[in-house]
Amino acid sequence: MKKLEDYICTIPDFPEPGIMFRDITTVFQDADGLKLAIDTMQDLVKDLDFDVIVATESRGFIYGAAMAYNMGKPLVLVRKKGKLPRETVSVDYDLEYGKSTLEIHTDAVRPGQKCLLVDDLLATGGTLKAAAELVEKLGGEVAAIECMIELGGLNGRAKLAGYRVESAICFDGK
Amino acid sequence: MKKLEDYICTIPDFPEPGIMFRDITTVFQDADGLKLAIDTMQDLVKDLDFDVIVATESRGFIYGAAMAYNMGKPLVLVRKKGKLPRETVSVDYDLEYGKSTLEIHTDAVRPGQKCLLVDDLLATGGTLKAAAELVEKLGGEVAAIECMIELGGLNGRAKLAGYRVESAICFDGK
Repeated sequence: MKKLEDYICTIPDFPEPGIMFRDITTVFQDADGLKLAIDTMQDLVKDLDFDVIVATESRGFIYGAAMAYNMGKPLVLVRKKGKLPRETVSVDYDLEYGKSTLEIHTDAVRPGQKCLLVDDLLATGGTLKAAAELVEKLGGEVAAIECMIELGGLNGRAKLAGYRVESAICFDGK
Repeated sequence: MKKLEDYICTIPDFPEPGIMFRDITTVFQDADGLKLAIDTMQDLVKDLDFDVIVATESRGFIYGAAMAYNMGKPLVLVRKKGKLPRETVSVDYDLEYGKSTLEIHTDAVRPGQKCLLVDDLLATGGTLKAAAELVEKLGGEVAAIECMIELGGLNGRAKLAGYRVESAICFDGK
């Protein structure tokens, strides 16, 4: 039987030399791969007590939507600056080159709600750390942070110290 | 019982004066709203014979992922220029101000496959028309085009003439 990692396509030197890009479109464009990916993500948090799924733009939406539907939870979107139309809070964070800003609607998470954060990739952890800060700014609690692919060599877990972190697949490199 | 439109929040004058922005984040951040949205989208195409769901970045990913999982279909992503790492075909299309480019992986749709295109919004139809062209460039067939919200006043259906078009909710205005 095919394993989840067998569906992932690795592209050397994309988007720049030295980067091994892990392409998950080959997972989703196979109906069995998509089912396996979502089932695996759900299975990793089947013991978790949480109220809300918080998904990060834009590949996080894929996991977040299917999981929230299946698990009967609300889906909250974390988006790049300027995309959310109502009152937001925001967090700036560092990218490899430059900065970016993520936002969440102020009514999206209520104080005390337990949130499961989902995204595609845990690399340096900057995006997921920013998403966790957004949830906490609203008084929410980060129940766990989950991604499909973790790049172990970038040590994103260190940046997320104190949180429960789950990944479906961990690659050694960067 | 709450109807799907009751979950949608309308924001006047966003992102610019005169636009009534239909915010669907309030649908998703309610577990019942999310379920109703996905179930309604699925119900509208329950008679459709198709092989693949093609979802447009980024809100289209939300419907596409949940529907593809539930319906046992592959999920193909149409993304903005430069986001897809393997060989792509692309289509340029006009926005209200300027131009944009959408891409699809060349192996994402095989000749003869019947595709259901899903997105959040049918406004002028430019994005969905471009997505249909991408599918056809690969030899795929557009079985139907589906969106959650249609802005009837912008007449996007005229641009999509010849395709079956489904929307869960049609608002009269722009």
